[in-house]
Amino acid sequence: VAETAALVEGRALIVGAGLMGGSVGMVLRERGWHVSGVDAEPSRAQLGVEVGAFDVAGDDLTAELIVVCVPVSQVAEVAAGYLDRGAIVTDIGSTKANIVNRLNHPRFVGGHPMAGSERDGIAASDALMFEGRTWVLTPVETTDPNAYARLHTLVSSFGATVVSVPPDRHDELVAIVSHVPHLAAAALMGVAASAAEEHATLLRLAAGGFRDMTRIAAGHPTIWLDICAENRDAIVDVLGQLIEALSEMRDAVEDNDRPGLNRVLTMARAARVNLPTGAPPAEELLEIWIPIPDRPGFIAEISTLASELNVNIYDIEVTHALEARRGTLVLVVDVTKGDLLRGGLMARGFKPSISRLGER
Amino acid sequence: VAETAALVEGRALIVGAGLMGGSVGMVLRERGWHVSGVDAEPSRAQLGVEVGAFDVAGDDLTAELIVVCVPVSQVAEVAAGYLDRGAIVTDIGSTKANIVNRLNHPRFVGGHPMAGSERDGIAASDALMFEGRTWVLTPVETTDPNAYARLHTLVSSFGATVVSVPPDRHDELVAIVSHVPHLAAAALMGVAASAAEEHATLLRLAAGGFRDMTRIAAGHPTIWLDICAENRDAIVDVLGQLIEALSEMRDAVEDNDRPGLNRVLTMARAARVNLPTGAPPAEELLEIWIPIPDRPGFIAEISTLASELNVNIYDIEVTHALEARRGTLVLVVDVTKGDLLRGGLMARGFKPSISRLGER
Repeated sequence: VAETAALVEGRALIVGAGLMGGSVGMVLRERGWHVSGVDAEPSRAQLGVEVGAFDVAGDDLTAELIVVCVPVSQVAEVAAGYLDRGAIVTDIGSTKANIVNRLNHPRFVGGHPMAGSERDGIAASDALMFEGRTWVLTPVETTDPNAYARLHTLVSSFGATVVSVPPDRHDELVAIVSHVPHLAAAALMGVAASAAEEHATLLRLAAGGFRDMTRIAAGHPTIWLDICAENRDAIVDVLGQLIEALSEMRDAVEDNDRPGLNRVLTMARAARVNLPTGAPPAEELLEIWIPIPDRPGFIAEISTLASELNVNIYDIEVTHALEARRGTLVLVVDVTKGDLLRGGLMARGFKPSISRLGER
Repeated sequence: VAETAALVEGRALIVGAGLMGGSVGMVLRERGWHVSGVDAEPSRAQLGVEVGAFDVAGDDLTAELIVVCVPVSQVAEVAAGYLDRGAIVTDIGSTKANIVNRLNHPRFVGGHPMAGSERDGIAASDALMFEGRTWVLTPVETTDPNAYARLHTLVSSFGATVVSVPPDRHDELVAIVSHVPHLAAAALMGVAASAAEEHATLLRLAAGGFRDMTRIAAGHPTIWLDICAENRDAIVDVLGQLIEALSEMRDAVEDNDRPGLNRVLTMARAARVNLPTGAPPAEELLEIWIPIPDRPGFIAEISTLASELNVNIYDIEVTHALEARRGTLVLVVDVTKGDLLRGGLMARGFKPSISRLGER
């Protein structure tokens, strides 16, 4: 897509020199960016330079992209201090509703790369951390379409797949796929550790499945304490659902209810086998051209719709003058998904047209 | 250990041509064995020959090793039919107490390789499946020491680490590290699948941690139904412990009990980080020579003691005439663990002596 207004070889500022900030810095540098890094603890930013995550330690008032990579409980306060610079500001926090609602700014686009590592600290940074992973963006009605499109394109260039959801929906969903699984892994590990005090043999029996299941329990506890505080209601709700499901299983095992147990295990297996993988982009792609309507919030609406329809947007651009609200939004999608997304867009009053990639 | 009475280039019979039977057959063939395979469904045994798991499909009355690889609910009945042949008989079932108690035979040594795959069927067989994994053996008082020692040596040659535990203890421990984690993964997957019916986006957010945690939910349901029936009491008990741990977590999140949550998460993290890995054998090894005492059950006692003391036995052999009960048992262990195991053995009335590998 030749005209993509991608941020290339620009200047970025990473605020917070931990594992994620370092990894974002590294991949930006690999893409030709100049990256500055700051941290409340200056020695960490300096370490970021030493490990190749940042070009320099220190602020950059000219940065056009600012990525806030501080602990999730501090994101809103820290990001608020950078909004008046004219840069696109995003974050990598694991919860979104509190942050986005509090900042409520056109150039702040909430983000959450679904990636991480058992290790922490900037020395473990990895430019490949986002390759093949999902990177959630949470545009809202007030989000600047240009800021969103540029960030979408940039994050895609990291090898990540962008999924757009509203901030509150994001928080509900990550409670299910991330927060509660982490707590469950910790609970399992706790049960095993108690038993291991008595029987040293136990941990030697912990084979592949157990290691896989409990890997995320090795995450840094303070990160999870923040998450539990920020996303309390959804976590309590989903923990309740999990406890109920386990109680039903316990009853089924106790009662030798083979058909009941079979039903649950078969459904779980089918769902697991069908978990989507980070498939590589299709060879054949389509462009969907959408005249930008005269109403706010269309970027959030369209990107969220695509995610709900399970249509991956490989690239996105905004053509012509945005200020006049008469531009065109171009989405690049898999050729097999073009009609699906077009139908959804038409149902919502947009006027999309489809063309082969590069035909126009 | 030059004199090891290892089973090399012998004849083996695999009973049950599934993923595990095929993988055992493959690794035996790689070690120079002649492997026959039978299955209630003859076409499966034939497929085993085609994929390289067996040399021939059909029985082998001269096999000196018989590995029963049928579903766990059928192991005792099937294995009983092979005990009068004079061969060493073992199995790969995921529960042990029912099987071992019911067979109660000197040449039956219960086994459980802690390995597996999301896939099933003999076509997915893999000679490397046991590399670096734990293979539990469950000798009891009546177990023939020679049969145990030969099996230990053979399984070690597959690249697996042997851990010996009594059958009932095995069942309690695998409920914690295998059975309940599997059920918990299925429960989590069930919660996610319900939510996904409403929000297609959910499964696209399922990143590494969730995929890792739920991988074992892809196992074949009928295997797990058998396991739940065979190991009911331990599973019900451990599920209860997990439900309790999750309920405490839910309360802590709901009450914003940061110190309480921190305690649980920190403990889980420490336990997870300390999970033993399949470390390669140490460069320096010791031999512990133990005059075989005039009492039955010493092989179960010694091998279980070593596992409880977290001492890996890299090789084991029985020298001189066993029938006279005046032989010597030689254990090969890490040089750093020699005194620990010697102390434990002396405390139990054995008379161990230590020598450098090959000094005698």
